[in-house]
Amino acid sequence: MYDFVPVFKQPTGSPIRELSKYLGQRDMISFAGGVPASELFDVQGLKRASDSAYENPVACLQYGATEGAPALTEQIIRFVADDGISCEANEIIATTGSQQGFDLLLRTLVSPGDVVLVEEPTYPATLQALRLQQASVTAIPVDKDGMDVGELRTVLESGALKARPKLLYVVPAFSNPGGLTLSLERRLELLALAVKYQFVIVEDDPYSGLRFEGETIPPLLSLAGQVEGARNWVVHLGSLSKIVAPGLRVGWTIGPEEIVRRCVIAKQTADLCSSTWMQAVAAEYFKSGAIRPHLKTISSEYRRKCDALCDSLRAEFGDEIEFQPPKGGMFLWARLKSRKDTSLLLANAIAQNVIFVPGKAFFVDKVDVGSLRLSYAAPSVDEIKEGVKRLKLAFEGALTKNDAAIQS
Amino acid sequence: MYDFVPVFKQPTGSPIRELSKYLGQRDMISFAGGVPASELFDVQGLKRASDSAYENPVACLQYGATEGAPALTEQIIRFVADDGISCEANEIIATTGSQQGFDLLLRTLVSPGDVVLVEEPTYPATLQALRLQQASVTAIPVDKDGMDVGELRTVLESGALKARPKLLYVVPAFSNPGGLTLSLERRLELLALAVKYQFVIVEDDPYSGLRFEGETIPPLLSLAGQVEGARNWVVHLGSLSKIVAPGLRVGWTIGPEEIVRRCVIAKQTADLCSSTWMQAVAAEYFKSGAIRPHLKTISSEYRRKCDALCDSLRAEFGDEIEFQPPKGGMFLWARLKSRKDTSLLLANAIAQNVIFVPGKAFFVDKVDVGSLRLSYAAPSVDEIKEGVKRLKLAFEGALTKNDAAIQS
Repeated sequence: MYDFVPVFKQPTGSPIRELSKYLGQRDMISFAGGVPASELFDVQGLKRASDSAYENPVACLQYGATEGAPALTEQIIRFVADDGISCEANEIIATTGSQQGFDLLLRTLVSPGDVVLVEEPTYPATLQALRLQQASVTAIPVDKDGMDVGELRTVLESGALKARPKLLYVVPAFSNPGGLTLSLERRLELLALAVKYQFVIVEDDPYSGLRFEGETIPPLLSLAGQVEGARNWVVHLGSLSKIVAPGLRVGWTIGPEEIVRRCVIAKQTADLCSSTWMQAVAAEYFKSGAIRPHLKTISSEYRRKCDALCDSLRAEFGDEIEFQPPKGGMFLWARLKSRKDTSLLLANAIAQNVIFVPGKAFFVDKVDVGSLRLSYAAPSVDEIKEGVKRLKLAFEGALTKNDAAIQS
Repeated sequence: MYDFVPVFKQPTGSPIRELSKYLGQRDMISFAGGVPASELFDVQGLKRASDSAYENPVACLQYGATEGAPALTEQIIRFVADDGISCEANEIIATTGSQQGFDLLLRTLVSPGDVVLVEEPTYPATLQALRLQQASVTAIPVDKDGMDVGELRTVLESGALKARPKLLYVVPAFSNPGGLTLSLERRLELLALAVKYQFVIVEDDPYSGLRFEGETIPPLLSLAGQVEGARNWVVHLGSLSKIVAPGLRVGWTIGPEEIVRRCVIAKQTADLCSSTWMQAVAAEYFKSGAIRPHLKTISSEYRRKCDALCDSLRAEFGDEIEFQPPKGGMFLWARLKSRKDTSLLLANAIAQNVIFVPGKAFFVDKVDVGSLRLSYAAPSVDEIKEGVKRLKLAFEGALTKNDAAIQS
């Protein structure tokens, strides 16, 4: 009946969001969403921040600047300085979550057919956004140190791409879904490639504060100062969603002024401004100094949960499942040794009251059907243990390569 | 340096938002922004709503459904029922202000080159959004009863449009900038035309609750039940921005399920979901029953301010300025009898510490340069009186048609 634009004629929603309908089911254990632990929210601290913010009610209730409330952006500038990022007010825009930051970048930088590079596997909402923007997506594989930058170099040098890439999307710390971290060496090499081939690196960095093992590696935007010209080619996306609370919808985009200015204009028509009330609460919460100690609390809890997941997987599945234990973030990426298609196992899992995200959702083309993403952030340690037992029951029979019964 | 998409190569921001830099100036009186009166915010009522909402902190802090928190959409469904609108949960999406609702509609329905109809003069953010979407915009003139639907019929019948229009954008109650209200007869005729020519009417309705004179006319979505098939062709945008507080960024889009479903998918990549905290506050505020009495308070204050503006304009300018006194909303649309270009007078006004929006910003092509928009919502009655005196000083000499000095 309606003449929708081509990409919306046969719409398919986010595969992860589609799973959310099962979350409300009683006794369901979810390894599915990229959802932070509700029990770790700093409920009192945020209440205090909210009360402080509301001492100036007009600043909470009235329209605000599209680029973000100055009180908030000032705090963000201080916060990212701890990671070695220095930026001016005209290089930052506060967004409705970092998801909006990526959307604004696509609107201003990517025309239909433009080449965009992603690591593979990668975040499905990124793939969906790129599909809706009609980008031509080329995937770069990952190994244990994150995106294979050597392979990226080969792709760039080979001239195999149909055009100069516009953007490269990467989650350098505790990637979604891989849980991988890009090594320092690769980060520097990636920056050099961006300068040489003139593409914008979109550094999506929601998880770096959630490290529970190993040494911090500076974000790409911080390292850009060490590579001549690189500062022009990095846009950094940050967010309070994973480290404070997603309900605030407070994120930020930091990049070259020319790019940020266009994102501001795109945001004028997208939503005029993000909630000024939430921005004021976020600014007060930053000011309270609660974030850094809070990050320690979450990270140590996530370590406990991650350990429980790794131990349970080993105990239940032995060597039937392969994974690299994460050092931070929220995700464990696993592979069935049998290479059975996990998207076909999902129904069994739901019948056992446990959900996960089948690997399929995270690939551009070369799908590793035997993979799956397990988030350990939201469930409790007991739920994790029980959830893995249920997974084992659900996958039973599917672990042997020649057993086709599960696909019937 | 960067290869921006064509519409962002030479970006021009919102002409109204650009004026906001003058707002901070001491002693500046602003008739410019479409900003509700800060002193009328129900600060205590919203604080109570916020405290109630936070009794369930996880619902405020965690991710929520992209289509909106059920507690909120349920309240919106009740609220719009008072205006005769009936809708189901799958016909509504909560958005980050109604601005986002329009943006999502454009993304799903308008391809570059598609024909979109607007009333003229119209809201500049709408024109900007259409420009960024590369729509082909055709303007329909207005008279004292809003959009000239007879003229619209002529345009549609004439075959002068290069293609079947996709959308028609209209603010039927107290339009921005005209302050005009579409008559009942025209509303019914417009609905019939939408069915006949199969275009989607976007009914942007932020101001209808702000009536201070005359009888309410039902919104188009409510009247659609009276015109066979019309329900398929109306999308209604509502918002708390003008009637409660813009800082919440809570709006809603109500329309056919097929369209709403696509808006939900577009929103997944745009910002995942709007702030769950703000949605919970809005839901509690609706539940408190405070909105209807609050609307009476605002409306009667806006009447007082509007009267002050009309009286002052008559007293200072006599018949040198023409306008139709609004019966609600926030805007008065005026014309200099001299037809001097108000965009050239703005600098004089700023020098006199008063700002307004020159008419130019509201036109697609046939610019009425002698027009200007004055918002009476934000300034106090005393400021309104003083502001009009300053306008008189600023415009002095420009009111006589043959005086060209002002343009030098």
